[in-house]
Amino acid sequence: MEKMIKAAVIGATGYTGQELIRILARHPSAQLVMLTSRQNQGALYGQMFPAFRNIVELRLSQLDFDQAAKSAEVAFLAMPHTESQVVAAELISRKMRVIDMSADFRFRKAQVYQRYYAEHRFPGLLRKAVFGLPEVYREQLKKAVLSANPGCFPTSVILGLKPLAESKMIEPAVIVDSKSGLSGAGRGAVVDFLFCEASASVRPYNVYKHRHQPEMEQELSRLYGRKVDVTFVPHLIPVSRGILSTMYVRFSRKISGARLETLYKEAYDKEEFVRVLPLGELPDIAKVKGSNFCDIGLSISPDGKTGVISSAIDNLVKGASGNAVQAMNVMFGLEENAGLKSIALHP
Amino acid sequence: MEKMIKAAVIGATGYTGQELIRILARHPSAQLVMLTSRQNQGALYGQMFPAFRNIVELRLSQLDFDQAAKSAEVAFLAMPHTESQVVAAELISRKMRVIDMSADFRFRKAQVYQRYYAEHRFPGLLRKAVFGLPEVYREQLKKAVLSANPGCFPTSVILGLKPLAESKMIEPAVIVDSKSGLSGAGRGAVVDFLFCEASASVRPYNVYKHRHQPEMEQELSRLYGRKVDVTFVPHLIPVSRGILSTMYVRFSRKISGARLETLYKEAYDKEEFVRVLPLGELPDIAKVKGSNFCDIGLSISPDGKTGVISSAIDNLVKGASGNAVQAMNVMFGLEENAGLKSIALHP
Amino acid sequence: MEKMIKAAVIGATGYTGQELIRILARHPSAQLVMLTSRQNQGALYGQMFPAFRNIVELRLSQLDFDQAAKSAEVAFLAMPHTESQVVAAELISRKMRVIDMSADFRFRKAQVYQRYYAEHRFPGLLRKAVFGLPEVYREQLKKAVLSANPGCFPTSVILGLKPLAESKMIEPAVIVDSKSGLSGAGRGAVVDFLFCEASASVRPYNVYKHRHQPEMEQELSRLYGRKVDVTFVPHLIPVSRGILSTMYVRFSRKISGARLETLYKEAYDKEEFVRVLPLGELPDIAKVKGSNFCDIGLSISPDGKTGVISSAIDNLVKGASGNAVQAMNVMFGLEENAGLKSIALHP
Amino acid sequence: MEKMIKAAVIGATGYTGQELIRILARHPSAQLVMLTSRQNQGALYGQMFPAFRNIVELRLSQLDFDQAAKSAEVAFLAMPHTESQVVAAELISRKMRVIDMSADFRFRKAQVYQRYYAEHRFPGLLRKAVFGLPEVYREQLKKAVLSANPGCFPTSVILGLKPLAESKMIEPAVIVDSKSGLSGAGRGAVVDFLFCEASASVRPYNVYKHRHQPEMEQELSRLYGRKVDVTFVPHLIPVSRGILSTMYVRFSRKISGARLETLYKEAYDKEEFVRVLPLGELPDIAKVKGSNFCDIGLSISPDGKTGVISSAIDNLVKGASGNAVQAMNVMFGLEENAGLKSIALHP
Repeated sequence: MEKMIKAAVIGATGYTGQELIRILARHPSAQLVMLTSRQNQGALYGQMFPAFRNIVELRLSQLDFDQAAKSAEVAFLAMPHTESQVVAAELISRKMRVIDMSADFRFRKAQVYQRYYAEHRFPGLLRKAVFGLPEVYREQLKKAVLSANPGCFPTSVILGLKPLAESKMIEPAVIVDSKSGLSGAGRGAVVDFLFCEASASVRPYNVYKHRHQPEMEQELSRLYGRKVDVTFVPHLIPVSRGILSTMYVRFSRKISGARLETLYKEAYDKEEFVRVLPLGELPDIAKVKGSNFCDIGLSISPDGKTGVISSAIDNLVKGASGNAVQAMNVMFGLEENAGLKSIALHP
Repeated sequence: MEKMIKAAVIGATGYTGQELIRILARHPSAQLVMLTSRQNQGALYGQMFPAFRNIVELRLSQLDFDQAAKSAEVAFLAMPHTESQVVAAELISRKMRVIDMSADFRFRKAQVYQRYYAEHRFPGLLRKAVFGLPEVYREQLKKAVLSANPGCFPTSVILGLKPLAESKMIEPAVIVDSKSGLSGAGRGAVVDFLFCEASASVRPYNVYKHRHQPEMEQELSRLYGRKVDVTFVPHLIPVSRGILSTMYVRFSRKISGARLETLYKEAYDKEEFVRVLPLGELPDIAKVKGSNFCDIGLSISPDGKTGVISSAIDNLVKGASGNAVQAMNVMFGLEENAGLKSIALHP
Repeated sequence: MEKMIKAAVIGATGYTGQELIRILARHPSAQLVMLTSRQNQGALYGQMFPAFRNIVELRLSQLDFDQAAKSAEVAFLAMPHTESQVVAAELISRKMRVIDMSADFRFRKAQVYQRYYAEHRFPGLLRKAVFGLPEVYREQLKKAVLSANPGCFPTSVILGLKPLAESKMIEPAVIVDSKSGLSGAGRGAVVDFLFCEASASVRPYNVYKHRHQPEMEQELSRLYGRKVDVTFVPHLIPVSRGILSTMYVRFSRKISGARLETLYKEAYDKEEFVRVLPLGELPDIAKVKGSNFCDIGLSISPDGKTGVISSAIDNLVKGASGNAVQAMNVMFGLEENAGLKSIALHP
Repeated sequence: MEKMIKAAVIGATGYTGQELIRILARHPSAQLVMLTSRQNQGALYGQMFPAFRNIVELRLSQLDFDQAAKSAEVAFLAMPHTESQVVAAELISRKMRVIDMSADFRFRKAQVYQRYYAEHRFPGLLRKAVFGLPEVYREQLKKAVLSANPGCFPTSVILGLKPLAESKMIEPAVIVDSKSGLSGAGRGAVVDFLFCEASASVRPYNVYKHRHQPEMEQELSRLYGRKVDVTFVPHLIPVSRGILSTMYVRFSRKISGARLETLYKEAYDKEEFVRVLPLGELPDIAKVKGSNFCDIGLSISPDGKTGVISSAIDNLVKGASGNAVQAMNVMFGLEENAGLKSIALHP
């Protein structure tokens, strides 16, 4: 029998934590050994979250660094920004490998983090962190001690534009109009996200100031080899899961649709979780819901000068916990799709 | 020009309060003069609730009993149970007429209130209160000083069973299975009512112990002339508005469908807001949403021994604020449908 | 008593037709006198559409031009593109005034219509037609015989960009990312629009080839005084009602947020149905649902070079039937808001 | 390596067919070898249904009995009632084992089938058929040639009442009020099930005449040992997946809650897919969505005379395709939970 990776989930009660547990509880080569939470300690997980009844029999515990390091090899941190870095530092110092779901280690430069979040307390760790998107950093992840799981919007955008950025076939200024389901807003008790407030609502928010924008710019700029400007407008949409990003690009020189399709097909030929649709077909979040796929649609203007790239992911899976497990699989030399074979739940 | 009734809404920020304001702001013979709230005092209503922008230009104020009595003739109390009675007592002592949306004055007997809610501090006022369902207590409402607006579930059930109870054509024990939209749970920030928690959820709650059950029993018993037992199970359904109540009755003696239909048609012949569907047609909350109608469907078993009565209302309109305005219209001698002519918003 | 305008609805069973009837049935100065449909002739409207039970007592009839002209002054045509023009021509020849909900008379040039729809059979009538957006063509509408009601997306975009186009403060190339509720797709029985297919779905469609794009270009170009290019990507969103358009503009020269806000406030100062939100506040379709408002939000980039204008309408009201009634009010000299005072139904 | 069961899905494009394929494509011991459809022959399944892109690479084919028998051991028939029996007969005569999703073989008596559906053309096969609910007929299924997969509503009701029926602790007359998601209505293009028609709708249908009622009566009667009467009212609810059944029972003699809980816990102690909740906790379809579980809640009246049993299933999984795969596992001696380990997708 294959070796089982022992995993701890730090912050097990939010949507990201629940989704990690949903995936890991059925992972063929991983074993959940510790679930922590600041509230509800001692509660049986499957009783508190009835979807897990009779399946996850662990109890929520307090986070004890030594205990975590003794019982688990890898920790998933599903914690608030700024708090996560402290825990990561402690666990890494105890020889654990850490997959951090927060933004704490996504930026190469502490100043960028500071501008958008807060002062960084462990800038040295930033150099150890790998931006945890296997489609971009697979090699680096294999030996990574610390994977900084990308933000949900950036994942949809980086995967959506990677072939164009790498090939420098677009001008380095893009407009991204994203539509996100409400699980991205978390499980906090907030009036705006009540069913009655949200179910008939479609609205933009954080125009020109969403914190995922610098993340997109960092990674697209690196792929492109020069600064890429991103205008980013997120919207909230009445679905639980899913992000659809519509990306408006201007080609450096006219190209044909066939050329565009070939570029993408080749770029993602070996990627199981990125599905490039035939030219003119368009992605739909309903067709990736509950799965780890990123579906990409390609459209080109009649004059061949501009393009619209659209991508769809499940924000909790490829946009968060599924991608994190994929990174774990890479880090521990498992089959990359282990535990991630779910087909979208549709309808 | 017709006289304008001056109205105050005490508790203007919850869903019941908002709905009162939505209706009263366009009422041809009423004028909103005061909106109170314990929080957000000073805020412009139309800024806080953008649906009302440029329409409702009042500011939220603190509740001042003297000021209320000076500026308004009628007060709608959209407040929590147990707090409402204090305000009602103060305003009535200042000669205002009061329409109370809480349960504080719905019971004839203080002991029943006490068993389900808390000790009643103004049992004397209970004798003044009229159960504010115009289809049952129209005459009493005309002179009422205090209208106790019925609970949303009871309205759907009392209207649904009134003809059968009055005619004693059923055994005095009924089963009521109700399905309610989430606005019935209010605008409080509660995790269970987040879009993500509720949008794929259908579930019963408070089985055998919902506080609307004694209200149904009180009124059905009075109509029947003897104690009627109600088994009541409410369910939460992922819509914002609407209650559908399915009522299982056993006829005292076999009857025909035609007889049943005639009974209902005659009973509600003069009621604008109760629509009896032809035998076999079934109501749908989508067809009453945003309107003050109660649609009633009649079904009878092949052997004629049992029946299923189903009724649909918008819980915020006929189940709350619309009915309250209807009561106001009766109390002040206005056209009973004034301000209440909206047709259901479908789709 | 005020004179009642007699109105016919040609095509009464689709969503646009139903919405016209919902509004006209409660219009203080209009009277429905004829509802036609190709199917279901003879059916009582309120029986076929239970929301209208006991309210609309007309029967569906066959369209008879002479009968229409005899009984009504104005006809609303809620018919398929290409068929509508024939009916319009017949009714206009019989001295009726016509408000056409189709695209048949929206274009000034028959060639544009032909490119996107079909050959135009009544190019002469195009010259008589007024593009029926009162905020732009109020004066022309007053005497119009034929109002071409704008498309739903164009209404949200033209109102959203009018001040910037007229003032030439933006470069004449804009990107429009629109999100539409499903009632825009109509009431046809189509698998893609089943609840099960659509309720968890968010997806773009008709990228670079939606037929509303030339309509936007025609009107924005006219307002601007030169050709404006529009890149338009519509998306389907799981709500019944509402369009949110997010418009990306590049200012001709840097401007301040205050300047932008002033521009819009002044432009729409006298328009009851256009609400300009304070700078930084963002519109939400939930807050206009069921109402005739267009809410507009203004955002400006930190460097003042680009802007994001967002607008929200109810596609069936301001985006279709409400706007049509507003046009009728203008055409017949009624109060422009007659029948259109509904406040958004929220929640 | 374990032997792989070769499976054909006859009728692969409806929701039941899609769900079978979703489960079987990831089943560790089954292999899809044939997908048939009357339309769309030759289409690549993963292209037609993009959720399956790159995963299911089979093409839709015409049903060829000989070919089916040659390539597969088991056939799942996801076909319309009355047509399914013909195919079953053909395939069984070719030595295949058949799991029929229709109602064609659920009734022991051809007359009952005839009363509710049509004349039965293969009454002899009825004797071979096993009612395919493993929790009731596990032993019989092991050798079954033909499994008649239960209806979705009956599954929720039979599992919900089995312990009470077997123990004869209730009077043999029950009221069942069920709430079903819309996938139960299938993937046909029907106006009533459009998003716009259904998303704000809650309504009963087929009161006193739903065809699942005799199925419930047949099985409950058999468990009880005498005729059990079922009053059944189904409702449509705006969710894609899920059935919640609320069952009203009258105990033969007073019992305690503890006794009731023990009865159920013991009855289902060994059943992986039936989860009995602690007394007073109530099931929610959101917590079984996408999983093969049936969650059961128990409530008892204060006087101990009546009870409310509530059960929740995913109608497409335990109510259809998941249960069918569970039956296949039993029929072929596999682990009963093979391919069925999904945890509910929540949120």
